[in-house]
Amino acid sequence: MAMKFYYDLLSQPCRALYIVLQASKIPYEACPIPLKTGMHLSESFAKDVSKFQKLPVIHDKDFRLTESVAILKYLANEKNLSDKFYPKDSKSQARVDEFLSWQHHNIRGFCTGYFRMKWLMPLITGQQSSERHLKGSKQNMSDNLDLFESLWLSDDKFITGGTPNAADIWAACEIEQTRIAGYNPCEGRPYLEAWLQKVREEPFYKEAHTIVEAIISKQ
Amino acid sequence: MAMKFYYDLLSQPCRALYIVLQASKIPYEACPIPLKTGMHLSESFAKDVSKFQKLPVIHDKDFRLTESVAILKYLANEKNLSDKFYPKDSKSQARVDEFLSWQHHNIRGFCTGYFRMKWLMPLITGQQSSERHLKGSKQNMSDNLDLFESLWLSDDKFITGGTPNAADIWAACEIEQTRIAGYNPCEGRPYLEAWLQKVREEPFYKEAHTIVEAIISKQ
Repeated sequence: MAMKFYYDLLSQPCRALYIVLQASKIPYEACPIPLKTGMHLSESFAKDVSKFQKLPVIHDKDFRLTESVAILKYLANEKNLSDKFYPKDSKSQARVDEFLSWQHHNIRGFCTGYFRMKWLMPLITGQQSSERHLKGSKQNMSDNLDLFESLWLSDDKFITGGTPNAADIWAACEIEQTRIAGYNPCEGRPYLEAWLQKVREEPFYKEAHTIVEAIISKQ
Repeated sequence: MAMKFYYDLLSQPCRALYIVLQASKIPYEACPIPLKTGMHLSESFAKDVSKFQKLPVIHDKDFRLTESVAILKYLANEKNLSDKFYPKDSKSQARVDEFLSWQHHNIRGFCTGYFRMKWLMPLITGQQSSERHLKGSKQNMSDNLDLFESLWLSDDKFITGGTPNAADIWAACEIEQTRIAGYNPCEGRPYLEAWLQKVREEPFYKEAHTIVEAIISKQ
């Protein structure tokens, strides 16, 4: 029985997991859940899929797991996740862990915050956020992307070294999301732009972003 | 050369690491950094300790690492961290990883948010936060602690099972912080109260919280 993967490619961490699953050729049963229908908030989702009512989720037989970073590590321990994404060497692994912890309250928090305020919430509620709140959220995101570039990308390599790994995939998926909200994360950030172009060349990256690019091209 | 541990026991993740280092008898050189002096924001700290200008930090010879969750995993890989805190079995480990990912944007975010707004920022800036902002922050924290209790503590066990591990230590250290801000996290939450009492019995927990209790007793 293949592992079930519940996801929506509109979600950043779902895209990141999709890329590493596909690239590592880990067999799974695709269980797409359209977030915009609110299906994940239903009682049946809570009972049958995950009490956390969020995506992504995996069911590996009777073992249910949420949180993309935890799932990544589980795939490294239990499945044939490519070492490329999550290195076995403990110091290299610690660098990936460090970034994956850091990003929660940095690019994940600020980029998602702006995306939700500018694009998602008006779509769901029909109401625009106030200009003052939008301006503050955009400034916080912009400052944090500057920090991301200066702390992690101040040379022409990838986030934790000379080759791309899960840190780059998770970061890039978060940063692409800002483009749906009409923001250009590369503007004025040459290191970020060069890095993002390289990450976009990773196998399955384009495929994972088909929905994102379709939304952007219609705007 | 013993590993250097830069910390301040006023910081929640520093306390969590202190507890697991002491309980696991991992040798380290204690490098206390008083956060309230702002020393971590100095150029010399950025150069000599960590460019991230945050605590905790470890230096294991020439390997510098930040982010408490990443340090925890590094200690499990490289030092004799007790299995009790970070289990070797991949499913048990995944449950701890799941919680340690979940907490970032839940109890870590909301409890720290209220603590900073109510206690820390007025101490640093000399200015009180507005009543409206404080009320909103307190409500968000309260709702999230309810969610924490219902998702993770709805029986008489620990967060991920029958024995305490890093998930419990990290969560409890965050939740204790709210008491500095005059909040009682146990009120109206019988499962949380019973769980917290049990975690408080863990070796080195009381010692790690000496500063926190001293601040609370003076208020």
